Amino acid sequence: MKTKPRLQRRSGCPISIALEIFGDSWSLLIVRDLMFKGLRTFNEFQAAGEGIASNILSDRLSKLEAAGILTKTADPADARRFNYRLTQRGLDLAPVLIEIVLWCARHEDTAAPPSTIRSMRNNRDRFVADIRQRWSAG
Amino acid sequence: MKTKPRLQRRSGCPISIALEIFGDSWSLLIVRDLMFKGLRTFNEFQAAGEGIASNILSDRLSKLEAAGILTKTADPADARRFNYRLTQRGLDLAPVLIEIVLWCARHEDTAAPPSTIRSMRNNRDRFVADIRQRWSAG
Repeated sequence: MKTKPRLQRRSGCPISIALEIFGDSWSLLIVRDLMFKGLRTFNEFQAAGEGIASNILSDRLSKLEAAGILTKTADPADARRFNYRLTQRGLDLAPVLIEIVLWCARHEDTAAPPSTIRSMRNNRDRFVADIRQRWSAG
Repeated sequence: MKTKPRLQRRSGCPISIALEIFGDSWSLLIVRDLMFKGLRTFNEFQAAGEGIASNILSDRLSKLEAAGILTKTADPADARRFNYRLTQRGLDLAPVLIEIVLWCARHEDTAAPPSTIRSMRNNRDRFVADIRQRWSAG
């Protein structure tokens, strides 16, 4: 499971370590795009709606790849294009994203479909299992 | 529940909105200090171990207060000192922090006590309930 060597961390606290990996305002949006929206390419991420700048997107993709959260492979049909996929380690972020969605849906006005929120809240484990299944099927 | 007016958001996605509120590498550490370590003052947060710079700490405390995640009140014993407390909205971040801890404990070498991790993993709802109870008692 522990695929990365121990790096120079600001502390051993798991929250601190995790925030050093994905604690910025863009990284988890890329994970969201892969996990929930089925997006796979640089252009798709860039068009995903929040207006990420291409240099920031490029930086975050590299960092997430270095952190073992996603992989980058050449498209079989066009070697100049790359496809990104979540690793198991990236897929394991599903419960983190779900709790963020539930917190936000409870406390802010969001555009999240109420049926999805209900499904996350009432059948959380099932929701995570479905994500894993869709992912392994895709 | 929805205590804040709708702001200019980069999108209506709940993950995006949440990351605009606490998507940086420090804000959730302050929430952690309040929630898990019982810290309450600027000096305590600054000494919490990750070496946060005082200007960054000051900025993040203001933003978290503006976002309704914590409150700042003068210390009854010394009006020049301030105490910080989580709001209900801040306390509701407990499941997010727990899932971050579980992800990190699974995939990285951390200093988290294994007994705490087991308790989070096996009795997650109980763990959250205990946090809420300790908080309302304190």
